[in-house]
Amino acid sequence: MPKLSEKGVNMPESPIRKLVPYAEKAAKANKKIYHLNIGQPDIQSPKVAMDAISQHGVEILAYSRSEGSEQYREKLAKYYQSNNIMVSANDIIVTTGGSEALLFAMGTICDAGDQVIIPEPFYANYNGFATASGVEIVPVISKIENNFALPPIEEFEQLITPRTKAILICNPGNPTGYLYSKEEIATLARIVKKHDLFLVADEVYREFVYDGQSHYSILEEPGMEPHGIIIDSVSKRYSMCGARVGCLVSKNRQVISTALKFAQARLSPPTFAQIASEAALDTPASYFEEVIAEYQERRNILVEELQKIPGVTVGRPKGAFYCIAELPVANSDDFARWLLEHFDLNGETVMVAPAGGFYSSPGEGQNQVRIAYVLNKESLIRAVKILEKALAEYPS
Amino acid sequence: MPKLSEKGVNMPESPIRKLVPYAEKAAKANKKIYHLNIGQPDIQSPKVAMDAISQHGVEILAYSRSEGSEQYREKLAKYYQSNNIMVSANDIIVTTGGSEALLFAMGTICDAGDQVIIPEPFYANYNGFATASGVEIVPVISKIENNFALPPIEEFEQLITPRTKAILICNPGNPTGYLYSKEEIATLARIVKKHDLFLVADEVYREFVYDGQSHYSILEEPGMEPHGIIIDSVSKRYSMCGARVGCLVSKNRQVISTALKFAQARLSPPTFAQIASEAALDTPASYFEEVIAEYQERRNILVEELQKIPGVTVGRPKGAFYCIAELPVANSDDFARWLLEHFDLNGETVMVAPAGGFYSSPGEGQNQVRIAYVLNKESLIRAVKILEKALAEYPS
Repeated sequence: MPKLSEKGVNMPESPIRKLVPYAEKAAKANKKIYHLNIGQPDIQSPKVAMDAISQHGVEILAYSRSEGSEQYREKLAKYYQSNNIMVSANDIIVTTGGSEALLFAMGTICDAGDQVIIPEPFYANYNGFATASGVEIVPVISKIENNFALPPIEEFEQLITPRTKAILICNPGNPTGYLYSKEEIATLARIVKKHDLFLVADEVYREFVYDGQSHYSILEEPGMEPHGIIIDSVSKRYSMCGARVGCLVSKNRQVISTALKFAQARLSPPTFAQIASEAALDTPASYFEEVIAEYQERRNILVEELQKIPGVTVGRPKGAFYCIAELPVANSDDFARWLLEHFDLNGETVMVAPAGGFYSSPGEGQNQVRIAYVLNKESLIRAVKILEKALAEYPS
Repeated sequence: MPKLSEKGVNMPESPIRKLVPYAEKAAKANKKIYHLNIGQPDIQSPKVAMDAISQHGVEILAYSRSEGSEQYREKLAKYYQSNNIMVSANDIIVTTGGSEALLFAMGTICDAGDQVIIPEPFYANYNGFATASGVEIVPVISKIENNFALPPIEEFEQLITPRTKAILICNPGNPTGYLYSKEEIATLARIVKKHDLFLVADEVYREFVYDGQSHYSILEEPGMEPHGIIIDSVSKRYSMCGARVGCLVSKNRQVISTALKFAQARLSPPTFAQIASEAALDTPASYFEEVIAEYQERRNILVEELQKIPGVTVGRPKGAFYCIAELPVANSDDFARWLLEHFDLNGETVMVAPAGGFYSSPGEGQNQVRIAYVLNKESLIRAVKILEKALAEYPS
């Protein structure tokens, strides 16, 4: 039998997906599962977007331009400008989800063996994209006791080597829900300017900030034009995860023209999803007001309920729709599997994402889980109750 | 300014896309351009697929499974079985176009520096995917005078090194239109079995074979289960290039489980496009009969008309919808640009794809162009007439 690549063998399995067989077995045994494990919102996609698809009128489903349709990019530029991110259509390449934007960014700035510094815990699939691209992730640990704030600047500078090409952040953060302040973005900007690095910011949760705070983009920071690359997506913004439309945004012309070559090789992003994404830009402000209010309430309930459980520590997320909780268990992988395999409360259990997969430092996050608050309030309360009972019963 | 990756700098520009600025200038000057350069068919997408999208009924556009929806994969397996390719849903990973299937295949079997042998001329974007994956393409030249048949087995064996991981073919071939015979597939099977390599076959043009011939898949060949990987796509089959749905098919469990890790990192293929692709499997046979008859007629006209031009040699394609033509010019890049910039016949000109980009051996194909017969017959005749006049006028 021919041999597979080392890269393929080393590709990390998604920390969420590897629990799926256990969840399927539990579902077959008629256990009801509350899914706290995934970032698939239960929020309806904007009607204006779904209607645009019903009325598509397409007769020949043709390739779009590799960089995305002109019309969509023009409208996207206006969206960014209204968010104080002063870019034009030419600074945008439409991608197949934020995932592809990340792959294009890594390919554009990193060769095999190059390093990217990432505050951890971080979005687990960064590990996958790094492995696929031959890139080494160099983690800086952010701590639950500091609510996952930006680690001190010295910790970054200590890690910079001649192979360091970029710092990558997710803001607001998946899985921490942390929202970087303007001062923290300015600090990161100083580091990348001083060491001539890129700053890549995954800003797909831009709209999801709570408590009246506001999001500050890396491209709002002065002088970031040569350094800044934004990764974006419609998945969470419009609850359109299945669209697979994102984009890469940069004022650095070389970055755009190089990323475009990667985009041309794969021909074009999906046409129907671009139609939906373009229409989604007309989503009324009231949609977001309702969605944000709903998430903020869910966050409040989740954090409040979790804090009632003895031995549980939880960060207070300021954005996105995740939080990291520290549980009184030694190994959250084992606990998450046990929840599905061996536990139920009146036929119900919960599924959580073990946090180990969100770290690249071995052994970190072993007693943490990521909880997504993408369920309605009643379900959230019920799910946390089940978690509490499970922790009391868990034979650790 | 931070430095880009060498990979990014070395990414080849698409041989077609690099002419686009000249085409745009010509269009602005009101020149009418006959596009012989692209594989975007003018054929309507199946009504059954477009109607399925109009009636989508989606309220939350959610992620699908990373490997593609269960239902679509089940139906796809039946399609393959009806084509004598005996696979099940578990042997299929749905991808974002054939492009992503190729990237997953390369990632699954090749590390940076590994080699893949490809008969050239080949689909130009293989160069891009190889560069993105750090893979070295080792070309075996197939010749226009042999109508681009499989080069002798010795030529392959001479090129095999410890870093060789696979042979990659496109069957029927883009850009040659060549259809490999059962004997040629058996020859390739012998080589990969003897040297324990993979055989990756891009079979996206499976239906497009002419003169009553039939397509023989690598997975019809006995004993290919551990070695064979099929790359497929709905783009050409159903004239749905903009869907961006393809798949990777293999009976090798390790290949599937490894490719699935790459698929999980990017979450899922596009949902709407999967709805269209699943519905497209119900396209009536009459659709294909008409389409194939149409392409065969176009091919006949194109080859006949090209052969009338002094100094032009053309292969006789047996499949797909491209042919390679040798022109009496020294540099087809220059000629293709000149056609757009400096030539017109009563305000009309043609756009062709210079063939150099379809080779990886430097200097090969300099007097060749790829011509796609994706225009109706009248336009094809007119386009070849324009090409003839242009060749007579071209100051070479």
